[in-house]
Amino acid sequence: MNYRAIAHYLGLVLRVEAAFMLPSLALSFFLGESRVAWGFVAAISIALALSTLLYALKRNNKKIYIKESYFVVGVCWLVISLVGAVPLFFSGEGGSFINCLFETISGFTTTGATILENTDTVSRGLLLWRSFTMWLGGVGVVIFLVAVIQATPGGRSFHVMQAESTGPSPVKIVPRLRDSLIIIYCVYVGLTVLEAVLLLLGGMPLFDSVNIAMVTAGTGGFAVRSGSMAAYGSLYLEMVVGAFMILCGINFSLYFYLIARNFHAIGKNGELRAYLGIIAVGVLLVTLNLTGTVYGTPGQSLRHSFFQVGSMITTTGMTTADITQWPTFSKTVLLLLMFIGGCAGSSAGGLKVARVMLMLKVARRSLFGIVRPRSVTIVTLNGKEVDRETVHHTIVYIILFMLLYGASMLLISLDNVDMETTFFAVCATMNNVGCGFGMVAPMNSFHDFSTLSKLVLSLDMLLGRLELYPILLLFAPSTWRRG
Amino acid sequence: MNYRAIAHYLGLVLRVEAAFMLPSLALSFFLGESRVAWGFVAAISIALALSTLLYALKRNNKKIYIKESYFVVGVCWLVISLVGAVPLFFSGEGGSFINCLFETISGFTTTGATILENTDTVSRGLLLWRSFTMWLGGVGVVIFLVAVIQATPGGRSFHVMQAESTGPSPVKIVPRLRDSLIIIYCVYVGLTVLEAVLLLLGGMPLFDSVNIAMVTAGTGGFAVRSGSMAAYGSLYLEMVVGAFMILCGINFSLYFYLIARNFHAIGKNGELRAYLGIIAVGVLLVTLNLTGTVYGTPGQSLRHSFFQVGSMITTTGMTTADITQWPTFSKTVLLLLMFIGGCAGSSAGGLKVARVMLMLKVARRSLFGIVRPRSVTIVTLNGKEVDRETVHHTIVYIILFMLLYGASMLLISLDNVDMETTFFAVCATMNNVGCGFGMVAPMNSFHDFSTLSKLVLSLDMLLGRLELYPILLLFAPSTWRRG
Repeated sequence: MNYRAIAHYLGLVLRVEAAFMLPSLALSFFLGESRVAWGFVAAISIALALSTLLYALKRNNKKIYIKESYFVVGVCWLVISLVGAVPLFFSGEGGSFINCLFETISGFTTTGATILENTDTVSRGLLLWRSFTMWLGGVGVVIFLVAVIQATPGGRSFHVMQAESTGPSPVKIVPRLRDSLIIIYCVYVGLTVLEAVLLLLGGMPLFDSVNIAMVTAGTGGFAVRSGSMAAYGSLYLEMVVGAFMILCGINFSLYFYLIARNFHAIGKNGELRAYLGIIAVGVLLVTLNLTGTVYGTPGQSLRHSFFQVGSMITTTGMTTADITQWPTFSKTVLLLLMFIGGCAGSSAGGLKVARVMLMLKVARRSLFGIVRPRSVTIVTLNGKEVDRETVHHTIVYIILFMLLYGASMLLISLDNVDMETTFFAVCATMNNVGCGFGMVAPMNSFHDFSTLSKLVLSLDMLLGRLELYPILLLFAPSTWRRG
Repeated sequence: MNYRAIAHYLGLVLRVEAAFMLPSLALSFFLGESRVAWGFVAAISIALALSTLLYALKRNNKKIYIKESYFVVGVCWLVISLVGAVPLFFSGEGGSFINCLFETISGFTTTGATILENTDTVSRGLLLWRSFTMWLGGVGVVIFLVAVIQATPGGRSFHVMQAESTGPSPVKIVPRLRDSLIIIYCVYVGLTVLEAVLLLLGGMPLFDSVNIAMVTAGTGGFAVRSGSMAAYGSLYLEMVVGAFMILCGINFSLYFYLIARNFHAIGKNGELRAYLGIIAVGVLLVTLNLTGTVYGTPGQSLRHSFFQVGSMITTTGMTTADITQWPTFSKTVLLLLMFIGGCAGSSAGGLKVARVMLMLKVARRSLFGIVRPRSVTIVTLNGKEVDRETVHHTIVYIILFMLLYGASMLLISLDNVDMETTFFAVCATMNNVGCGFGMVAPMNSFHDFSTLSKLVLSLDMLLGRLELYPILLLFAPSTWRRG
């Protein structure tokens, strides 16, 4: 393994992290949150010192291959989470270092699970950094550097993209990967700015608007106020956030086609149609179920149904209502949406709509194979044939996901919380939703879990966001063997 | 599709069902349970009338192919369940016909979920028939007839066996399928008789011994007394039943090797080793967890741990303790065991140990593929290489299982029972365990579910026992299309 190249990339990522801490440092300094400001100074110093140390290693070549691509992504995410947890730890507002690490990993992985029991009393500088981690984590930080800044013609930037982006197979919208990525980042920035402006126009304070726009773009869902979106009580603001959650659950490359007026490419995208279809059906079913049982009018039901369905399928996890009081049917719809997740190539978590579609198609084909044993059926997605390898990898991914899900539940159950909480704690973290039912319901925190559980759930968040392999490779003995 | 051949086989299966009702008819007649006796007379009359009608159709040839094999199994199981429900319905002791159908399907599929609220007051003749359904369902009724009595050299009896037996691929222990099956049935009868004798020697009443032996052999778990095995309060009886549950969760063909003194074949069986290993680890973990928290001594913990672990992995579902009061860790172990299930080719439910092993191997291989992209790894099971097709079908099976699981939960959630009950009602039926946690805990009944839920759960039991395809085919439009 080319450890020197990996060290070089890690050094670079740490410098970027330090740079992104500057706004939060400035804010906390400006607001006189001196302990927090010193925390950022400490974190920036650590990042720069580590970076200088890593840069001191001479490297022979920058080329990295598949294995290194996954490895570098896994290592970078772990290290930036450790460094990113320093300000919160230093401030004393997050408690133990494990708590702070959990919170930071929850941010970078756009999960939104929190150990903070009341965000209203937390320093502004820390809240801003929390939102920044989500925004950075949404589209990935490593690929940005490796591919855009350091792109080498002979390197394998594509594999890094594969390791860090979501869904079964990333799309190159223009022939050069670097250009594709620049377009995607521009779309991401554009969506964030647009939402922040719309929220400001709706009367949301500037600080809240910027933060909510960032956590929506990353489909993360860290709330600025302890009441989540319900705290604002404004239909307009809920609709803006709801709409942007759904927009950020769409494959970002489709926005490029939109700008390029390539409507044919958008129309061909079966995943988008399925995603919007699932949302429409979900909103309808939940609205019907809520009307008369929880809310008096269909209008009220629709309002909350739309926001919650959008929030759960994009695994954002923000809420406008106490979903623990909803009927079991609505809860089960939300549960299934958490597992489905958003589109591939978006910032959303879950299994991804594309994978669920492949699951259904493969299941259907297997049934057809018994009825017509001699016929050959091919699996298509987005108008293209999906090759055997991709189909195989997709279903193996789901199998691996289920196995890790079971193992995580077993470890969490040692805390002796009830079965529902055990199930949903893993669901909330592996799908990067950040909340569920039981003791991990939206308004609760993960504060009371044991240290072991917090470590397991932190790992689950990373497994979910990086789609298993980059993290699993760090623990596979064969990764560390020479040869 | 060769509907005439299917009609012929169905007619034959109905006659066998009628024959197996005779002991229950005799018992209820002898005990003066006249309403029940008339119920059996009615059921036998219906079975014979239907059979005669089906026989009246002239058939051209008896040959059936893959599609027909699955179809005939699905249809036969549905029809014998409908007819088998008649005595319970006629007696008035089971309530609505849906209730009686649920109970009968629960029997044939060896699930053990019951709608009876107190078995102590139920007529003996009905209890005996209930146990008979489990015993018959354990190794399958259709294959017995199609292959053993009607075996045709040109036919595809093997596919019928594939459709009705459990696990990824059935084993032919001797070259002729018919002989293999006769051996398996002899082993099954032998195990049942042996257990009944051992129970009698332990002081269990004759009626209870016969019933418990039959439901253990089928790993079904219908209790004779309302307290399940706890009602006897005898360590010896618990150990006998516990041991036989575990024995009946083993691939029956291994007993043939045992009789033939082919220890090499048994030693090579990786699934058996894994099965026994999982039981050993499960018993150890649960014992450690229970000692000091629920029971005072390790001996008491071991006693209950052994029985419950054996009961859940074999999906029998009988209990000696109130597992709802156990710590969450023990509950989670039992939950995972319910999904793992017994060995392929046994009467147990669940995914089967062989499938779980293949899952783990495929998952491991996918990780290895990233570390060493150029290496080729093959998947082996029981010392033999597993071909690509079987691997693919196995993981697709699990995907399909998960999809149907989610869909079932959605339908059950309309009853507005809590999330835990919604989850475990499907778990208890699709894995053929018969119980779980929440409102479907071992001592509770399925009596209070809605008619829709009872229908969905009945279907789930059939899907689980027949491993999805025979039942799904009945609902696939392409099955009914000509061609």
